[in-house]
Amino acid sequence: MLGGPYDVGRMSPGYPERLARAREAASHGGLGALLVTPSAELVYLTGYSPLPLERLTCLVIRPEQHPILLVPELERPLAEDAGLGESAEIVSWDETDDPYAILAKITGGVERAGCSERMWARHLLRLQDALDGTRFSPASEVLGPIRAIKDSREIDLLKRSARYADETFARLIQTRLETRTERQVARQLAELLLETGNEEVAFTIVGSGPNSASPHHEPAGRELRTGDAVVMDFGGRTGGYCSDITRTVAIGKPSPKLREVYDVVQEAQDEAFRAVTPGVSAHEVDEAARRVIERAGLGDLFVHRTGHGIGLEEHEEPYIIQGNHEPLRPGMCFSIEPGVYIPGEFGVRIEDIVVVTQEGARRLNHAPRELQVVR
Amino acid sequence: MLGGPYDVGRMSPGYPERLARAREAASHGGLGALLVTPSAELVYLTGYSPLPLERLTCLVIRPEQHPILLVPELERPLAEDAGLGESAEIVSWDETDDPYAILAKITGGVERAGCSERMWARHLLRLQDALDGTRFSPASEVLGPIRAIKDSREIDLLKRSARYADETFARLIQTRLETRTERQVARQLAELLLETGNEEVAFTIVGSGPNSASPHHEPAGRELRTGDAVVMDFGGRTGGYCSDITRTVAIGKPSPKLREVYDVVQEAQDEAFRAVTPGVSAHEVDEAARRVIERAGLGDLFVHRTGHGIGLEEHEEPYIIQGNHEPLRPGMCFSIEPGVYIPGEFGVRIEDIVVVTQEGARRLNHAPRELQVVR
Repeated sequence: MLGGPYDVGRMSPGYPERLARAREAASHGGLGALLVTPSAELVYLTGYSPLPLERLTCLVIRPEQHPILLVPELERPLAEDAGLGESAEIVSWDETDDPYAILAKITGGVERAGCSERMWARHLLRLQDALDGTRFSPASEVLGPIRAIKDSREIDLLKRSARYADETFARLIQTRLETRTERQVARQLAELLLETGNEEVAFTIVGSGPNSASPHHEPAGRELRTGDAVVMDFGGRTGGYCSDITRTVAIGKPSPKLREVYDVVQEAQDEAFRAVTPGVSAHEVDEAARRVIERAGLGDLFVHRTGHGIGLEEHEEPYIIQGNHEPLRPGMCFSIEPGVYIPGEFGVRIEDIVVVTQEGARRLNHAPRELQVVR
Repeated sequence: MLGGPYDVGRMSPGYPERLARAREAASHGGLGALLVTPSAELVYLTGYSPLPLERLTCLVIRPEQHPILLVPELERPLAEDAGLGESAEIVSWDETDDPYAILAKITGGVERAGCSERMWARHLLRLQDALDGTRFSPASEVLGPIRAIKDSREIDLLKRSARYADETFARLIQTRLETRTERQVARQLAELLLETGNEEVAFTIVGSGPNSASPHHEPAGRELRTGDAVVMDFGGRTGGYCSDITRTVAIGKPSPKLREVYDVVQEAQDEAFRAVTPGVSAHEVDEAARRVIERAGLGDLFVHRTGHGIGLEEHEEPYIIQGNHEPLRPGMCFSIEPGVYIPGEFGVRIEDIVVVTQEGARRLNHAPRELQVVR
């Protein structure tokens, strides 16, 4: 039951530094403990990547103390193989022990504890019982800002992942789409994501014709036909890091209305990209895209935020959404993906991953953003 | 971002009945609301299977009231496509709304609420804030017993899934394993799981030689060689339902010690199987396996429970573990998988899925349980 979704291999450097920063951030944030179950957060901090299961695995980070990784006895050899070295002490619990009581003993009576965003309720409820008197909040309050700034190795992996996504799109549109079903196209995208170099397929959305107006449409049996707009939104993982790209293509000559809406969305995407620079807020980037679409009278049809951070998770901080006044900083990576959806007719979405640089922003995706007319 | 891990398609019958039973069980269990986020539980109750995301999707089941499915606005078309029909009312929240406040308003001030076992802490913590005064417990307390009894359609799917796993094993051992790495063998298992008919690979553990003593070993670069014991534990999904099988093989002539330990584990597996019958407890089944291994003086090396339920999740109720005095009932499906692990030397595990019948139990796996000596 291994090789969870965030498997990044063993060679990643810098875990002790990351753990030290997390400890410091917890201390600054007034958290007496960070409780990190199998998740992108655990991988980020230690490289350890077991599958999340009903048996509790939990990294305990406390200010001024050495980290402890609590694992089920049957996964002790697995944890020992993970190369944590000196950076955390491994403590195991037997199959009939109460791991929550053990964790409470390790943690002691702290006033506030941070827990993984994706910790299962099953575990959190038991921890809340065992750590009576402790208030829980998401560990992401302190880990999110650290993880949001990618280092050069992380950016390289995101770049590589983006390149595989670009190549997947390029190869796909060389094939004939007409008369194939959404499901068939989604399957081909999955195959191409692996062929181009990804270790894993994360997701593949293909919505054609009226289905393209459903932003998260599940590929189904509808056959693609001339005149369709087709929204394709897909991503894979390489070295643990995600890609996420959306392109909307036209099968055969697009209608004037499709072309018009497409131009609006493309301009919104460009405007949001141009708005990105250190110090500007996520809210302002969202606004830049939204303004273009509202000006075209389509504001009500742009039903989602402009983007989301990306890294070991497909969606993570920073969220590019109204009301997020967090200033952007160099090293942040996120999607810019405005969309317009006309119920019963069609939808258009264009998405690139970008990285914030000292000077502004750089796109990690380079697939053409102009409307591609395909067969 | 679609087609989550529990995707079972649209044709599954009986959702209104399942929802009615859940409502009744919540009422009996003193739960004013069941809050079900994307998970096997949501699929079981509605067939709806979006990916779990940071945007809240939550089915609200209340005694005496019509179920409500709260979804993000951008997934409204997806939810509408899911064919819930009359069985739940879809309510959507806009991207900048507070979905937790909306959910609190829907739920009202209930004393106790049950939430999905795998609900993300991110959501649960916000719900606990929004529903101040409500005590939360796992919805599995009332849904677990319902889901643990499989109907004939579910058993058929588990059977089919088990057959694909058996066939995967049969095809694998026709190939030469010696000199290949664990990782290569794991990859072949994944390919075979798909070729035999599964829609998805769930996991593939391959531990060879001393690595076989790590129950959840992550397949690595070690080459298999003559004299090795190799533990292979793998599973896929078909129609949403899981398989999970373990076989231990010997490459070339096994040592007398390996044969001896193998015989003990095989006898333990048989004894546990023979112990299964309606009314007997999960604890007693565990005991039946454990007794054989303890009698051989190997009790300390059997470091895990005897088994776990299986269905839409790889691990679910009932857990076949010491202290679980729940009586078995016809229709329950679970693994029987005793193991013995000698650190630095080798491990042996044998696992079949079984279903409890009126008369006793039936195995769903039919791959040979005798030690297979392979190349």
